[in-house]
Amino acid sequence: MKKYNKKRMQVINLQQKFNRLRSNKIFETLVISIIIFSALVIGAKTYEISPGTLSIVRLLDWFITFIFLAEIIVRFLGEERKSQFFKSGWNIFDTLIVIICFIPVEDSELAIIGRLIRIFRVLRMVSLIPELKILLNSLLIALPQLGYIVALMFIIFYIYAAIGSTFFGSINPELWGDIAISMLTLFRVMTFEDWTDVMYETLAVYPLSWIYYLSFIFFTAFAFLNMVIGVVVNVLNDEHEKERKLEIQGKNQLTLEDVDKKIEELKGLILQNHSAHNC
Amino acid sequence: MKKYNKKRMQVINLQQKFNRLRSNKIFETLVISIIIFSALVIGAKTYEISPGTLSIVRLLDWFITFIFLAEIIVRFLGEERKSQFFKSGWNIFDTLIVIICFIPVEDSELAIIGRLIRIFRVLRMVSLIPELKILLNSLLIALPQLGYIVALMFIIFYIYAAIGSTFFGSINPELWGDIAISMLTLFRVMTFEDWTDVMYETLAVYPLSWIYYLSFIFFTAFAFLNMVIGVVVNVLNDEHEKERKLEIQGKNQLTLEDVDKKIEELKGLILQNHSAHNC
Amino acid sequence: MKKYNKKRMQVINLQQKFNRLRSNKIFETLVISIIIFSALVIGAKTYEISPGTLSIVRLLDWFITFIFLAEIIVRFLGEERKSQFFKSGWNIFDTLIVIICFIPVEDSELAIIGRLIRIFRVLRMVSLIPELKILLNSLLIALPQLGYIVALMFIIFYIYAAIGSTFFGSINPELWGDIAISMLTLFRVMTFEDWTDVMYETLAVYPLSWIYYLSFIFFTAFAFLNMVIGVVVNVLNDEHEKERKLEIQGKNQLTLEDVDKKIEELKGLILQNHSAHNC
Amino acid sequence: MKKYNKKRMQVINLQQKFNRLRSNKIFETLVISIIIFSALVIGAKTYEISPGTLSIVRLLDWFITFIFLAEIIVRFLGEERKSQFFKSGWNIFDTLIVIICFIPVEDSELAIIGRLIRIFRVLRMVSLIPELKILLNSLLIALPQLGYIVALMFIIFYIYAAIGSTFFGSINPELWGDIAISMLTLFRVMTFEDWTDVMYETLAVYPLSWIYYLSFIFFTAFAFLNMVIGVVVNVLNDEHEKERKLEIQGKNQLTLEDVDKKIEELKGLILQNHSAHNC
Repeated sequence: MKKYNKKRMQVINLQQKFNRLRSNKIFETLVISIIIFSALVIGAKTYEISPGTLSIVRLLDWFITFIFLAEIIVRFLGEERKSQFFKSGWNIFDTLIVIICFIPVEDSELAIIGRLIRIFRVLRMVSLIPELKILLNSLLIALPQLGYIVALMFIIFYIYAAIGSTFFGSINPELWGDIAISMLTLFRVMTFEDWTDVMYETLAVYPLSWIYYLSFIFFTAFAFLNMVIGVVVNVLNDEHEKERKLEIQGKNQLTLEDVDKKIEELKGLILQNHSAHNC
Repeated sequence: MKKYNKKRMQVINLQQKFNRLRSNKIFETLVISIIIFSALVIGAKTYEISPGTLSIVRLLDWFITFIFLAEIIVRFLGEERKSQFFKSGWNIFDTLIVIICFIPVEDSELAIIGRLIRIFRVLRMVSLIPELKILLNSLLIALPQLGYIVALMFIIFYIYAAIGSTFFGSINPELWGDIAISMLTLFRVMTFEDWTDVMYETLAVYPLSWIYYLSFIFFTAFAFLNMVIGVVVNVLNDEHEKERKLEIQGKNQLTLEDVDKKIEELKGLILQNHSAHNC
Repeated sequence: MKKYNKKRMQVINLQQKFNRLRSNKIFETLVISIIIFSALVIGAKTYEISPGTLSIVRLLDWFITFIFLAEIIVRFLGEERKSQFFKSGWNIFDTLIVIICFIPVEDSELAIIGRLIRIFRVLRMVSLIPELKILLNSLLIALPQLGYIVALMFIIFYIYAAIGSTFFGSINPELWGDIAISMLTLFRVMTFEDWTDVMYETLAVYPLSWIYYLSFIFFTAFAFLNMVIGVVVNVLNDEHEKERKLEIQGKNQLTLEDVDKKIEELKGLILQNHSAHNC
Repeated sequence: MKKYNKKRMQVINLQQKFNRLRSNKIFETLVISIIIFSALVIGAKTYEISPGTLSIVRLLDWFITFIFLAEIIVRFLGEERKSQFFKSGWNIFDTLIVIICFIPVEDSELAIIGRLIRIFRVLRMVSLIPELKILLNSLLIALPQLGYIVALMFIIFYIYAAIGSTFFGSINPELWGDIAISMLTLFRVMTFEDWTDVMYETLAVYPLSWIYYLSFIFFTAFAFLNMVIGVVVNVLNDEHEKERKLEIQGKNQLTLEDVDKKIEELKGLILQNHSAHNC
């Protein structure tokens, strides 16, 4: 029994050490530096490099992968409840990145996927710096809020793409061939990218097709404006909400009602006084 | 008499059944699925398909039309007061779409119109999902509010188009031929789409014509900015209004005036007390 | 004496008639219709028209000019104090437009200026519809407020144009020939119009010139953003100011201080009561 | 001792004179005029000019440099504590500009740098007009606030550039050759400048590469929107803060709590009165 306890104590001891290591500023800075360094290695690979340098880069790549493995093991061992570790999306993401980096990919097809995964290691920067994590989370939270406007925009796109491919499909199949290509062309029109070239082409056949383009630009611009205003109003409301809560906490929720009640009490007392005096 | 009543009861019974059906979640989901399916069929038609598949698509088309007819009949029979049914713009829209789909169009000219109508069936999605309905309504409500700015913008466009076609008409008739074409060209300039190509052409003849383009861009940008700000201020004011109303409801409209009045009453009582005491 | 008075009475009588006419809804609608009609005539002139139609258009032109003359005379005679009439910028503008339309211009050189003046008659619409007048005034009022940001932007443009024409002048004189042309090119870069074509050209000679373009885009985008935010904040502050004034008016300026004073009075009374009782 | 004092008095006298001169409106206007004039001289140099005019321009250049030197000496002598003078970034900037203008640069290589420095003299306008100084300061202050969003945007750019140069590098090395060129191409895509040309090229090889472009546009647009909203919210919060401070100062911090306390005092008095009466 004692032996087991001793062993358990050692485990807890180790865990606390790892936990301390994990929260250590120097350790954090080191890991961030390694990530930046790995990003630079990825960037370096896009330049033409001599075979000698390439082998050094490959060595560095393995070195980084091992460091990352070590870092995740430290983080995992530092976690008090092991089952909680894989409940965080960021931990799963980190582990996956490291595991995939270990899969030997020499085949030309898979090699590209391997390189892609290595690029995503840069995203680990986001998982390490809390401020960036908050920014990315706000993006993911705002997404469903904008859901209905995105749906409305998709319907507008779909209807216009269907009209476009029906009427203009024979004029320029490269732009209006089918509904998918038409939607891409409409996205191009929405970004104002050479949209007049697209229009002049169909204007030669259908002289009234400017109505199609102008109404589309109007609808998407309006939907987009609505989206931006929606986001701004949401943000401002959140700020107001925070402010109001702060005010309430600061003022201990004293309102005009409370003052009113006290005056009523006073009135009761004076009236009592009055009647006592009269009799 | 009894027979009539019995018949009437049956009618009301049926109506309630249809009404219940109309509000049924499963029925709603089914109709939305059918609309999405019909949208996919429309999209599929834009791809090149074999005659076999085409006949299947046509069959599906008729099937969807019949489902839509059934759905509108259910909605109509479910309505308590039949005369109210056609007062809603959305109901008229839905009925029109279904009726037009039944007109046999085999002629090449009309066939395109028939296909166009079928595309608008996707808009029925908006009439079924309340959140999308609200979004589209907000668009239609905001339109007249922006009326005067649109009028001002139209005047700016008209004056510049008149100047443009007067001076640049002989340089490039395709861009400045008449006042209508000039307005389209100016819209292009407003979206910054290859506007320098348009300018360099006229700059060769009139070296000062950059004033024309820059002043136009300035005026339209300012009018547009005004429009956006107007919309934002409107939205924020609406929010403030709502907030204030909520506050008033929550506080039962108790104001400083009420408290003031009560203090006046107290004063009166004390004075009375005072005088009673003195005599 | 009586004769003079009678004559004066007649003049006042006439003036009141003209004043009533001026404010008459039918008269206003008529003038606006004439302006819209004159705008259409101007638009019609930009199309190729037969000599017969042209002579009709010319006749209409003279007709409109006479109507405008009559309208201004009515407005002038309807004004109580004649000296005040030309203190309004809009009245001066209206009178100038009418006078210039009477100058006979047949010479090809001046004819174009004459046509230009006729186009500006459309702007009279703004002087007649109060809502448009307010919009245009808001534009003119906002201009000096934005003065310093415009000045800062001009300095940024000037410095970058000087650098641009110094370094890139020999690469492409059409874009960077002198400081004026360079500023036009930079405006083009600011609107993102084919700015990469401009950049790639200089990038071939100076590989670091991307810093020039990116820093310019950053500075102008920031200055522009500042401008927009400044306008929004101004507008919102104006709204708050209005709201606060309304609140003060509605509440007759009753504040917590007033309530505080009354409570002090009450205290005085009670204390008096107390002492009276005690002795 | 007296002699020293007299001398010191003379120095202080002179310093006060310079200080008065420095704050003199006419002196300030003169310096600003000289800067504007020097800006015009810089602009004039970009036009092709005859050797005669060139020598005049050179003379003017030296004249301006000497005026600037005199102005800085006046400002320096007018400063009470000499050590404080070089603590202001603007003073260092002004002095550096003047000193560098005196370095004789005839060599073609350095001549360009000399001309560049002369251009930056226009920036002295900013250091002289306080309103412009505030605007530029606000830019520099806002920069670190936006730090994390800029970092997030850089990570997005880096990852997409790494993916881009990995997959598209062989398709068009001019656009996707290495990670630096890819980032420039992505900036181009972000400004919507001929981005479809870039896309269509890669779409021919990888038919799904539209996902790459659309997701990139979405992410950067969202990050940019976040940035703008962040700035707007900051500005509005600052305004609110100012307003609240003004309110507090104006109202001597009287709150409902104070009124509440006074009512409590009243109650105490009345109760005392009551008990006194009862016994």
